[in-house]
Amino acid sequence: MSAKLIGEGDQPLVCTPVVAKTRNLILTEVNNILEKKPDIIEWRADFFDEINDTNEVLSLAGQIADKTGDTPTIFTLRSSSEGGNHIPGFSQEDAFKLIAAVSKHTDMEYVDYELSNPPEQIEKLREITAANGTKIIASFHDFTLTPDKETLFKKLVEAKQYSADVAKIAVMPNSLDDVLTLLGVTLDAKNTIDIPVITVSMGACGVATRLLGGMFGSAVTFAVGHESSAPGQIPIDELKTVLEVVHKSSGNYIRN
Amino acid sequence: MSAKLIGEGDQPLVCTPVVAKTRNLILTEVNNILEKKPDIIEWRADFFDEINDTNEVLSLAGQIADKTGDTPTIFTLRSSSEGGNHIPGFSQEDAFKLIAAVSKHTDMEYVDYELSNPPEQIEKLREITAANGTKIIASFHDFTLTPDKETLFKKLVEAKQYSADVAKIAVMPNSLDDVLTLLGVTLDAKNTIDIPVITVSMGACGVATRLLGGMFGSAVTFAVGHESSAPGQIPIDELKTVLEVVHKSSGNYIRN
Repeated sequence: MSAKLIGEGDQPLVCTPVVAKTRNLILTEVNNILEKKPDIIEWRADFFDEINDTNEVLSLAGQIADKTGDTPTIFTLRSSSEGGNHIPGFSQEDAFKLIAAVSKHTDMEYVDYELSNPPEQIEKLREITAANGTKIIASFHDFTLTPDKETLFKKLVEAKQYSADVAKIAVMPNSLDDVLTLLGVTLDAKNTIDIPVITVSMGACGVATRLLGGMFGSAVTFAVGHESSAPGQIPIDELKTVLEVVHKSSGNYIRN
Repeated sequence: MSAKLIGEGDQPLVCTPVVAKTRNLILTEVNNILEKKPDIIEWRADFFDEINDTNEVLSLAGQIADKTGDTPTIFTLRSSSEGGNHIPGFSQEDAFKLIAAVSKHTDMEYVDYELSNPPEQIEKLREITAANGTKIIASFHDFTLTPDKETLFKKLVEAKQYSADVAKIAVMPNSLDDVLTLLGVTLDAKNTIDIPVITVSMGACGVATRLLGGMFGSAVTFAVGHESSAPGQIPIDELKTVLEVVHKSSGNYIRN
């Protein structure tokens, strides 16, 4: 089975985040996660305790990319305003430079970049990543609520307008109605936006989106390998078991 | 673990239909299904080849109720106009009489009765079943399409107005939007109608409702024991595995 990129295949891809803090623990976590055969590995570098040392980050990103081999990797520096780990003294500009450097100097397939960043920076990062063959996941997160359908849809359209390779929204539902809203937006995007989208309703309430979001058009579902990176994530083994049942039962409805 | 009635417990109940044709095969199927420990067993008597012989039906219904012991049973004579097996020469009046006789003379816990039957008959059956301690599932099926939200909701309200114990709708989605409509109606009913409801989107497209309908308020999900009685049903073992993951991941959101 050859590795798939986001948007490929007839089932949602399972992505497992790495959230350890030290170089050693991060590499150990990558090894452990690889045994569980995720489709994608996301390094949540905002948790790395040497994030201020660019050379350390680049060397570790390179090592991760080597270790994962065919399995695509995402480099993510989630900002604390969108649910990431707070990094003292680390500016938005620092983040931009680091992500650009990862694109230039490592083999990571994807970088995540938030749509809340300044438009000119997003455009600049698009140029840099394009020149280096790195793909961009343009993302939007809200850990407190689910914006209305129009707002959510606009975020996905915005990602496309920036020529991102993938559009992602992850939001917190405060009711099951919010979960239906998220699934509805996903379905609309699948029918109208021609880049892969990733959508998540977080928390216990949103579990339907992690299990069945693929049917509605979400290209990736995030699962716990060792430690979760967002509320509601399900252990990868359990998620894979469910996805198998969904795939068998839903036949050609999956992602078509 | 003591047996649960529809609407009890913190997870949707799994109901497995029996669709065999002869007395012997039906009893064998009941035995096989019981080994898989469904929460409820539904005898789809419209498939029974001696359905025209009331005494045979009553004796077999009694035997099934004995065999299933604590596991509640549903007696269902699905009309061919709502997706049931066509029974030549069997009138709507014959069905009414037979269902009333099952209520009077057997220990089956539930009878299914379609909302499309004449109102005075539904009321009459309500009186007869109440006198005999049998519960009514008032049902609506459409094997071709999913009516709009208002129409679906009205069916559930209608069931409540007839003092049914349970309201059921099972409809065919022609798109994933129809599936979201069904889940939305289920959620509305959970918040406003004070009898348990069972809702299903059939077919491959509707699999989300069989797996996650419980979170949105459906009290029962139908699974294949030996042979399916409607498109999209999932084998009971697989369904139970998924429900376990959903229950663990969604915590107190299940049916609350």
